[in-house]
Amino acid sequence: METGAAPIPAALPYFVAFSQLLGLTVVAVTGAWLGLYRGGVAWESALQFNVHPLCMVIGLVFLQGDALLVYRVFRNEAKRTTKVLHGLLHVFALVIALVGLVAVFDYHKKKGYADLYSLHSWCGILVFVLYFVQWIVGFSFFLFPGASFSLRSRYRPQHVFFGATIFVLSVGTALLGLKEALLFKLGADYSKFEPEGVLANTLGLLLVCFGVVVLYILTPPEWKRPSQAEEQALSMDFKTLTEGDSPSSQ
Amino acid sequence: METGAAPIPAALPYFVAFSQLLGLTVVAVTGAWLGLYRGGVAWESALQFNVHPLCMVIGLVFLQGDALLVYRVFRNEAKRTTKVLHGLLHVFALVIALVGLVAVFDYHKKKGYADLYSLHSWCGILVFVLYFVQWIVGFSFFLFPGASFSLRSRYRPQHVFFGATIFVLSVGTALLGLKEALLFKLGADYSKFEPEGVLANTLGLLLVCFGVVVLYILTPPEWKRPSQAEEQALSMDFKTLTEGDSPSSQ
Repeated sequence: METGAAPIPAALPYFVAFSQLLGLTVVAVTGAWLGLYRGGVAWESALQFNVHPLCMVIGLVFLQGDALLVYRVFRNEAKRTTKVLHGLLHVFALVIALVGLVAVFDYHKKKGYADLYSLHSWCGILVFVLYFVQWIVGFSFFLFPGASFSLRSRYRPQHVFFGATIFVLSVGTALLGLKEALLFKLGADYSKFEPEGVLANTLGLLLVCFGVVVLYILTPPEWKRPSQAEEQALSMDFKTLTEGDSPSSQ
Repeated sequence: METGAAPIPAALPYFVAFSQLLGLTVVAVTGAWLGLYRGGVAWESALQFNVHPLCMVIGLVFLQGDALLVYRVFRNEAKRTTKVLHGLLHVFALVIALVGLVAVFDYHKKKGYADLYSLHSWCGILVFVLYFVQWIVGFSFFLFPGASFSLRSRYRPQHVFFGATIFVLSVGTALLGLKEALLFKLGADYSKFEPEGVLANTLGLLLVCFGVVVLYILTPPEWKRPSQAEEQALSMDFKTLTEGDSPSSQ
């Protein structure tokens, strides 16, 4: 189990596959909810609002979750490749989330609705700002060549903790938004077990499950990528030793 | 820093103090919200509903959070004492949460309202059942004398992960309930920045902050209690050595 070539832990691929199944289900059920009960998605009409939940779920839940899993999935690739993929997935997530944000502010403006009055919107803005700051700081420390090894080592635990925290806050904010959308439309009918309410509650539980499975994959120390201290010291030997028979190049 | 007598990490007491300040503020603001805008708390009247948010915040947020911190705060007490305190805080949390649950079901029954139709209630029941199961399983493995040392070691990471997860789900469920209470009462007035809405949104952010600070304290490996393997092997010598000059008995 604990030899040098970093074998893939036996249960990890099953958990990763399950997380992807859950993540895709979350995106599909969000689409189904918007298609079946909200008239679908479009930019130029009242349907512009629906761009918001769809983009936020794809960007700040599914893609953000997958960006966190990159270091668990790509265990034997070059560290730099993995870093770039991690950063790129977060850029995609950020851009898609930005489209989702523009959609809701634009929709509010056209309808003359107030902005940023609800707990959902307060949490949402907090999450988006934290996500942006985390990306900038992460880029400066880990991809930009300036930061020293010791500075990176000291910042890494903070980056990991706040990364997981921002992901959890994103899932929580999605639940608050879902609840808001249901209560505004269904009102007292919510208590009659309307099909839309049941579908949206199920979507809420699926969002929770996706979040829990992603965090579960991030937790076990033995599922982590081999530590960078070791990797830096051995990087040349390691590359020479494993490049010929990397488990992922079969 | 890393000597045998398990010194207290320098920053830990400040973070713990901050968590307690936040936790007490959360309870106080919940009380203020219920007192100022919801007529206060009572069992025999329509105010019975208000017992629910108050008990849930005290039990499943504040006390549950503090129960998780016990192993970080009591670093030099006997392991068994710390375990019993951890289990007891969870029992108090569970009993107070049960009172909160009875309050809302009883209120719904008297008013003829439907039960368990909302995402808040689905998440809430899930959290309560998981919390109860986690307590029973935790008790069987760690306090009941039957389980072997290796069984405990294998279960411990699961117990810790699901403990933190259930705590996060509790905070998330509280936010959903807060949002529900606001939207049912304020409706469209929520968007007019009514004082109740602003106070309740602030309460929501305080709940998030308490959750984040508790998890932050749980994360650094160097803030954990010295490992049990070492403790078990040394327990007798350790006790003899430290009982006279324990840092907490000064």
